[in-house]
Amino acid sequence: MPTILGQNQYGKAENRVVKITRDGATHHIKDLNVSVALSGDMDEVHYSGSNANVLPTDTTKNTVYAFAKEYGIESAEQFGIHLARHFVTSQEPIHRARIRIEEYAWERIETSDANSRLIGADEVKHSFVRKGQETRLTQITYDGDKWEVVSGLKDLVVMNSTNSEFWGYVKDRYTTLKEAHDRILATQVSGRWRFNWSDDEQKMPNWEKSYEQTRQHMLQAFAETYSLSLQQTLYQMGARIINYRSEIDEVRFALPNKHHFLVDLEPFGLKNDNEVYFAADRPYGLIEATILRDGCEARIPVDLTNL
Amino acid sequence: MPTILGQNQYGKAENRVVKITRDGATHHIKDLNVSVALSGDMDEVHYSGSNANVLPTDTTKNTVYAFAKEYGIESAEQFGIHLARHFVTSQEPIHRARIRIEEYAWERIETSDANSRLIGADEVKHSFVRKGQETRLTQITYDGDKWEVVSGLKDLVVMNSTNSEFWGYVKDRYTTLKEAHDRILATQVSGRWRFNWSDDEQKMPNWEKSYEQTRQHMLQAFAETYSLSLQQTLYQMGARIINYRSEIDEVRFALPNKHHFLVDLEPFGLKNDNEVYFAADRPYGLIEATILRDGCEARIPVDLTNL
Amino acid sequence: MPTILGQNQYGKAENRVVKITRDGATHHIKDLNVSVALSGDMDEVHYSGSNANVLPTDTTKNTVYAFAKEYGIESAEQFGIHLARHFVTSQEPIHRARIRIEEYAWERIETSDANSRLIGADEVKHSFVRKGQETRLTQITYDGDKWEVVSGLKDLVVMNSTNSEFWGYVKDRYTTLKEAHDRILATQVSGRWRFNWSDDEQKMPNWEKSYEQTRQHMLQAFAETYSLSLQQTLYQMGARIINYRSEIDEVRFALPNKHHFLVDLEPFGLKNDNEVYFAADRPYGLIEATILRDGCEARIPVDLTNL
Amino acid sequence: MPTILGQNQYGKAENRVVKITRDGATHHIKDLNVSVALSGDMDEVHYSGSNANVLPTDTTKNTVYAFAKEYGIESAEQFGIHLARHFVTSQEPIHRARIRIEEYAWERIETSDANSRLIGADEVKHSFVRKGQETRLTQITYDGDKWEVVSGLKDLVVMNSTNSEFWGYVKDRYTTLKEAHDRILATQVSGRWRFNWSDDEQKMPNWEKSYEQTRQHMLQAFAETYSLSLQQTLYQMGARIINYRSEIDEVRFALPNKHHFLVDLEPFGLKNDNEVYFAADRPYGLIEATILRDGCEARIPVDLTNL
Repeated sequence: MPTILGQNQYGKAENRVVKITRDGATHHIKDLNVSVALSGDMDEVHYSGSNANVLPTDTTKNTVYAFAKEYGIESAEQFGIHLARHFVTSQEPIHRARIRIEEYAWERIETSDANSRLIGADEVKHSFVRKGQETRLTQITYDGDKWEVVSGLKDLVVMNSTNSEFWGYVKDRYTTLKEAHDRILATQVSGRWRFNWSDDEQKMPNWEKSYEQTRQHMLQAFAETYSLSLQQTLYQMGARIINYRSEIDEVRFALPNKHHFLVDLEPFGLKNDNEVYFAADRPYGLIEATILRDGCEARIPVDLTNL
Repeated sequence: MPTILGQNQYGKAENRVVKITRDGATHHIKDLNVSVALSGDMDEVHYSGSNANVLPTDTTKNTVYAFAKEYGIESAEQFGIHLARHFVTSQEPIHRARIRIEEYAWERIETSDANSRLIGADEVKHSFVRKGQETRLTQITYDGDKWEVVSGLKDLVVMNSTNSEFWGYVKDRYTTLKEAHDRILATQVSGRWRFNWSDDEQKMPNWEKSYEQTRQHMLQAFAETYSLSLQQTLYQMGARIINYRSEIDEVRFALPNKHHFLVDLEPFGLKNDNEVYFAADRPYGLIEATILRDGCEARIPVDLTNL
Repeated sequence: MPTILGQNQYGKAENRVVKITRDGATHHIKDLNVSVALSGDMDEVHYSGSNANVLPTDTTKNTVYAFAKEYGIESAEQFGIHLARHFVTSQEPIHRARIRIEEYAWERIETSDANSRLIGADEVKHSFVRKGQETRLTQITYDGDKWEVVSGLKDLVVMNSTNSEFWGYVKDRYTTLKEAHDRILATQVSGRWRFNWSDDEQKMPNWEKSYEQTRQHMLQAFAETYSLSLQQTLYQMGARIINYRSEIDEVRFALPNKHHFLVDLEPFGLKNDNEVYFAADRPYGLIEATILRDGCEARIPVDLTNL
Repeated sequence: MPTILGQNQYGKAENRVVKITRDGATHHIKDLNVSVALSGDMDEVHYSGSNANVLPTDTTKNTVYAFAKEYGIESAEQFGIHLARHFVTSQEPIHRARIRIEEYAWERIETSDANSRLIGADEVKHSFVRKGQETRLTQITYDGDKWEVVSGLKDLVVMNSTNSEFWGYVKDRYTTLKEAHDRILATQVSGRWRFNWSDDEQKMPNWEKSYEQTRQHMLQAFAETYSLSLQQTLYQMGARIINYRSEIDEVRFALPNKHHFLVDLEPFGLKNDNEVYFAADRPYGLIEATILRDGCEARIPVDLTNL
């Protein structure tokens, strides 16, 4: 036979599960989008269509919902670990499970202000509003022996309105760009960070605290870096995480340079003193890099931050 | 000629303008998406292609950027009023201007925590992160005499995890729905509210404060209403605004009922005690209504909340 | 009570129904997205939450699927008429039904070429590939007496690479645009046309043939008009439809001017003889107008073409 | 220093270039979206912000437009090869260039029918309508020595309305799915295929013909495979390409199983004889696999088909 099967995987993608936990009148919410991808002894289903080794994708969906009840959702990472372990250990033909999860954040609607008290409302503990623009992400991979956890976020839009320059670059026949000594630097962060936890024997990180701290370090590095290039800012964001979060060995970012062009107001007899900008959509610069703890291996794929 | 021209308008849509105001080291940001639509003596450009009465859409774009410098952007509403007045009063063939604006909110990146102080960072006053999911909206219409201002928001996602029921409805041959006495109520609010300010002689509302207060009343009414139907919740949200905000005479909402279905876990020997839900995309219920101050005229078009 | 209820409607939106009709081995497909909006005696559900007059949106969804079986789907328009009539005539509190339908086109996968015959494949009559970019649309409104049918399409992208000019326009202080005597004219057509069929006594149009012919007239008018402005092209597109299709009395278009800017290649020592263009996203000109059969009333709302 | 730089790349993404070629009155169009990613000696720009080795992303954008003039656009692949070679050979610090291109297809608007002849229109040769739903893709990678060309497409939606079954699968505690012996099989194809052309000494494939033939083989394999699982169909699609197109050594697909669920019409006293389906959005099965020419190495990354 002249053709052979290479890497393959299957599962149910984008299972939207919402878990409400009631602590008396106070409700808590976890809102996830869970995608399952399983690999193993799957040659026959490709070659002959025999499903004898195939756990249906519908079953992987059911498992997501059942596990939300059986294990609860302490964190996206912990939930993914339960799922991955289950598929690999319970089904002999399945040798590897990869669980990808998006998490949507909610915050409480404040109802205890003077105004609502006037109308006699009690404090409401079951009302929520979707929070923030970014989506929290995690990817759990398990092969029956080792774990790989890569968490991160996407769609976090940030801007520095000053403290950014760009000059001293290569000029060739096609270069027309003017050097800039005070520009807006804006980007929509897509970042992933890989944990060094890989073994059931190791102590598991506190996934929730790790996320909050990592996000904060990243934002502060963005804000506090006087930038001569977006590459420099990116590196600082990654290095700050590596330096402050010992549970993380590798970080990768894809940072689109969301260009804000100073509008030429001279034709109208006006001076634009870094005040009025045109926010462009396309094209955009795209800066991508991995930052590693020295001595660690790079394992985050190049395009993971573009998914 | 058997065909005639009816209502028509033209202009440049989606002008993305970002205005930075520097107050010493502290920067302020306004981030708008401005769309201009002009009407007037425009028969000839349609019939013969003569552009003698046509101010180019490119010029309307330039005007947006120039006005950001000349007038600043105090609020989206105030900025739209400057633009609409300009087009109608400066161009004889233009009889009516409609300015639609989307506004994107930003908040400061906090850099003054203990951690950043330890590394010696000063407080940063020019770094921002995009805030919230909703987009603030306004539409200014001016005919040279009267103003109409309709503001609002879209994509504000809210959820009550309890205090919602649905029963006692009509049942016909095609009804299979089971009555619910404790369900999740979630929606993605698209709302518009019309101000009674219509004349340069009247005192103009404080647009920024009005928006903040209106949004808060709306959220609190959502949270505090024990709901027997999404229609009831919608009405309460509108009535709360009318009752508390004297500058607003009319409110319209389009509220998609973002269904969260309780997952049947019985096949797995599990009981789902209002804990695990499937968040469905389509189809969704869509509830739309106008709420008016008694005696006022309805002027918000039916589909404005669906744009 | 200081607040009152204005226009309101409700129903299930975006019911995705696919109907397969088997004619022996040959299958036919209709692929629709159906949205139902009902109005009538609905004050109580808003004021008190009483659902006594409310047919659940879940029932309106079931009705869509049941009617696909009971009536088949001869055309989107005919299907919408069945649904609208049913809701208004079978439920006393419902006085008006509006059915909006999107239709997705499919074409057969060709399998009868020499290549597939060589490998012994029979002709396959049940395999389809989604066709075209545009979405066909219709909106049926029924009040128990009169019908209004507005059909159309959206997302049909067209381009003339020449035969378009733009000059002779108004110039004010903010005008910098250079006149153009040979430019690309490109747009993404959103069009709606209203039929004069309004009564069960009248002969119903052939909806399928009407759509095909109307689309073709519109495309040909776009291609054959030497354009001095997009407004002129728009008017010709509408007038062509009115002139050739007697079943249609009113047409409305929203035509974004998808700008293709000639790239300045002079800095690189190259001449750009109308060859290389930058296709811009935003901002875009937006040209909107209604064209009417003389003597007919305009009834298509201004923003229907922006939904 | 505890952190080091790993894989990194940069460039301008999503340069939208439209090239018109005039052959007398007959125009031809190429419509591309070009993304450039460059790698090489880029440590310093990350560590210190020195741009001494950095060709600005703005220059890479300019190069795309200039090359459209200098070389024309014979095919997306050929255009990408020109660009990649230029960046690697003209800039010493750049060691590797990756060019990703999306191509949008257009077809001519037919104007030569009887109807348009009646109104005296000549045949129009410069009017186009965007064709099809799928986007053609290519990725060119060059390291100064070897070439890698991976082409493909995304968003091609196909359906078989019969000749698909799914049964004989594994059943565990969470399995509730019923076996199906006649179901709809629908998917939105994302496919990539790698050419064995890798060296300037080799004869280059005919890129345009290769794409047309590969797409056709893929569609026919989809249509002609009696399917016991989507994996089997996927494998047949890939194997057909490998067997018929000697220039291709590796194929990868990501095929979402776009579920069409048979609607239960029994509550309404109706029988659903494989006629009425609900087209679901999420979740969906996701089937991914690589098919290789025997003896060839797998080089298409796992997630390339998910970009």
